[in-house]
Amino acid sequence: MKKIYINELAEYVGKEITIQGWVYNKRSSGKVKFLVLRDGSGYLQCVYFKGNVTPEVFETADKIGQESSVEVTGLVKEEPRAPGGFELDATGLNIISEAHDYPITPKEHGVEFLMDNRHLWLRSSRQVAILKIRHRIVKAIRDFFDNKGFTLMDPPIITPAACEGTSTLFETQYFDLGKAYLTQSGQLYAEAGAMALGKVYTFGPTFRAEKSKTRRHLTEFWMCEPEVAFADLNDDMDLAEEFLEYIVQTVLKDMGEELKVLERDTSMLQNVKRPLPRISYDEAVEILKKNGVEFEYGNDLGGGDETIISNQFDRPVMVHRYPAEVKAFYMKRDPENEKFALAVDVLAPEGYGEIIGGSQREDNLDYLLQRIKQHDLPQEAFEWYLDLRRFGSVPHSGFGLGLERTVSWICGLDHVRESIPFARLIYRNTP
Amino acid sequence: MKKIYINELAEYVGKEITIQGWVYNKRSSGKVKFLVLRDGSGYLQCVYFKGNVTPEVFETADKIGQESSVEVTGLVKEEPRAPGGFELDATGLNIISEAHDYPITPKEHGVEFLMDNRHLWLRSSRQVAILKIRHRIVKAIRDFFDNKGFTLMDPPIITPAACEGTSTLFETQYFDLGKAYLTQSGQLYAEAGAMALGKVYTFGPTFRAEKSKTRRHLTEFWMCEPEVAFADLNDDMDLAEEFLEYIVQTVLKDMGEELKVLERDTSMLQNVKRPLPRISYDEAVEILKKNGVEFEYGNDLGGGDETIISNQFDRPVMVHRYPAEVKAFYMKRDPENEKFALAVDVLAPEGYGEIIGGSQREDNLDYLLQRIKQHDLPQEAFEWYLDLRRFGSVPHSGFGLGLERTVSWICGLDHVRESIPFARLIYRNTP
Repeated sequence: MKKIYINELAEYVGKEITIQGWVYNKRSSGKVKFLVLRDGSGYLQCVYFKGNVTPEVFETADKIGQESSVEVTGLVKEEPRAPGGFELDATGLNIISEAHDYPITPKEHGVEFLMDNRHLWLRSSRQVAILKIRHRIVKAIRDFFDNKGFTLMDPPIITPAACEGTSTLFETQYFDLGKAYLTQSGQLYAEAGAMALGKVYTFGPTFRAEKSKTRRHLTEFWMCEPEVAFADLNDDMDLAEEFLEYIVQTVLKDMGEELKVLERDTSMLQNVKRPLPRISYDEAVEILKKNGVEFEYGNDLGGGDETIISNQFDRPVMVHRYPAEVKAFYMKRDPENEKFALAVDVLAPEGYGEIIGGSQREDNLDYLLQRIKQHDLPQEAFEWYLDLRRFGSVPHSGFGLGLERTVSWICGLDHVRESIPFARLIYRNTP
Repeated sequence: MKKIYINELAEYVGKEITIQGWVYNKRSSGKVKFLVLRDGSGYLQCVYFKGNVTPEVFETADKIGQESSVEVTGLVKEEPRAPGGFELDATGLNIISEAHDYPITPKEHGVEFLMDNRHLWLRSSRQVAILKIRHRIVKAIRDFFDNKGFTLMDPPIITPAACEGTSTLFETQYFDLGKAYLTQSGQLYAEAGAMALGKVYTFGPTFRAEKSKTRRHLTEFWMCEPEVAFADLNDDMDLAEEFLEYIVQTVLKDMGEELKVLERDTSMLQNVKRPLPRISYDEAVEILKKNGVEFEYGNDLGGGDETIISNQFDRPVMVHRYPAEVKAFYMKRDPENEKFALAVDVLAPEGYGEIIGGSQREDNLDYLLQRIKQHDLPQEAFEWYLDLRRFGSVPHSGFGLGLERTVSWICGLDHVRESIPFARLIYRNTP
């Protein structure tokens, strides 16, 4: 008997086949037993009629526990009412490994229980849908840059120096070379890459040992960071909005079924099309004031502020030209007003906050040296980075997109912990 | 004037355009100055005729230093003898940032000097070619699994327990939860993924704090690990050989120019087609004996042994069924001879050694518990992993491919340090 996957059923209508998978659900109505099987590619309802199968098979179909692994055989039938559009008129049922008392039942469980059992929770239709959408987003991100002639540049994870203070870094002993740190961003390395390859992107895990216990923070998360030589802040914003449109529209086009499983209202996602609104920090502060927020001019925007600002728009909004004081040392100042950095944050709608942060980089050696001193950074550790300004410096820009926040937003998740297979939070590093 | 990239020149023959890039090389022959420009997308020879440009431009073209960033304007001409097939009949030359005394010159430099200047060394045509081939390999790896219906599953980097002893692990303090470790492999997590999604792959950085100072070892390297439910060792070998064929043939098809820059003799790569030879450990030992190697039966194969074995074949060779004693605890024993593990290593030709290691996994709960005890592993840390055998266990298999060894092999590199943008070695974690 031909062994196939559930998502291949359409090619086998009217034929007898075998499916290997796990018992996801079952119900019974007297002379008929229904087993819903999952195999990772989809779900299939297998129908066991009492008269069609041996008494042993009929009894097994009745007794078998949730998540038992099985091999079923039967005739493929079209059935528009069934999930996926097909049904199996089942004849055989082999148990591969019987499961008893599977811990996750259809009843409600607490989140900590589910996170403790994350290795099993992943099997639920909701988690499968999220992981498939995450995969599609990752592929869309890579396809976008690959199709535009960017070169992938994997930056190092273990880095020798603390760029922005050691308090939010994970530390490790590196043989006889002293302490080393897990990277918070591959950007500085991406800049070296852009000078070699013109247009590059990084895409890998990054780390923040921040004691933030919010629903937006992970200690370990994936970030994609494009960096482009000969690009200014406007080019950067053009790239960011085209990028977001591509990701969201691709997911809407390809992942309709999974979004349905998540009961995601996609009306706001449909709007993610260019041009995205662009407002300055000053305009953002005006919005806060109009909404009665007591906001001190010059501060960075907090999560609550971001939500109020993004609520004014029907799609992601770009906020540019922040006070240089609250931004990183490597950002270029606005030549029209040195108080501002040529930075941009993209805020997602529906309260999902900053999903992209970017800037034009300081390309002047003297200014950059000055900033390193102002920020009290160890110049020696940055000599290689300064070399990029000594030898053929050019205007260049880039941004970073947080993968898990993007997945959370597109999937409409309450908490970022569901957006990654095994989340790392300040109070959890298991399983 | 339209700004374009060098790899777009074919569309602009006979037109005036502007290119932004860096001075890669220059030469002079009296009334003509030649500047070779690079912009990351390619190389372009710009020809300055004394009579065609202002005296200032002509003088600039003469004096400008290597790696200065410039903007050149001119007329695109077909020129079969030029690298890339085009030439610029140049009229303008703007210096964006002049570079003096660029440290890397066409003369020979020592490797440590080049590694100290890795951020600049990346700009050489050789390093650019390697990075582009690396990118193409990464894309081929992802495309292969995406097209086969695998779901990407990013495993955690920070892991709570030491699977195979702490001596080769990088350690970090994880808030109040004690010590945590950088992952050596995502496999155990991929197994949880395979039970949820049927077919998954991981692809991310992994870490070994080994004190190995060989040309094959990095402390930080990328690994791709597919894992398939309902697959045995034969299925695993089928997948591995199809995978390798796809990667190598894709690179040969798409990256001919880059392989030429590397002066790679591709005759052995052309052979990487299915079926790959499959020999047992016992047969491998026979080969060693015939070649006069003093090898103690039962030991693992060393790097030198692998080279002798792979030299007998014209393409990668699969060695399967190793003594269980020298392999990991999670590998299933061969039911036909319990002394052997259902493991497979794929050895690359030309002395590049093991590029793939895989196995069928132990799917029996009792046997696995026994192995955990035999290996003196803390059972509690593996309870979640044991759950995969408690609830719907199925036969399953997978393997890991080391990205940097694969890049080294395909590019024909002497040392794995050139296969990754910023290599981490026991004596180097900078820049």
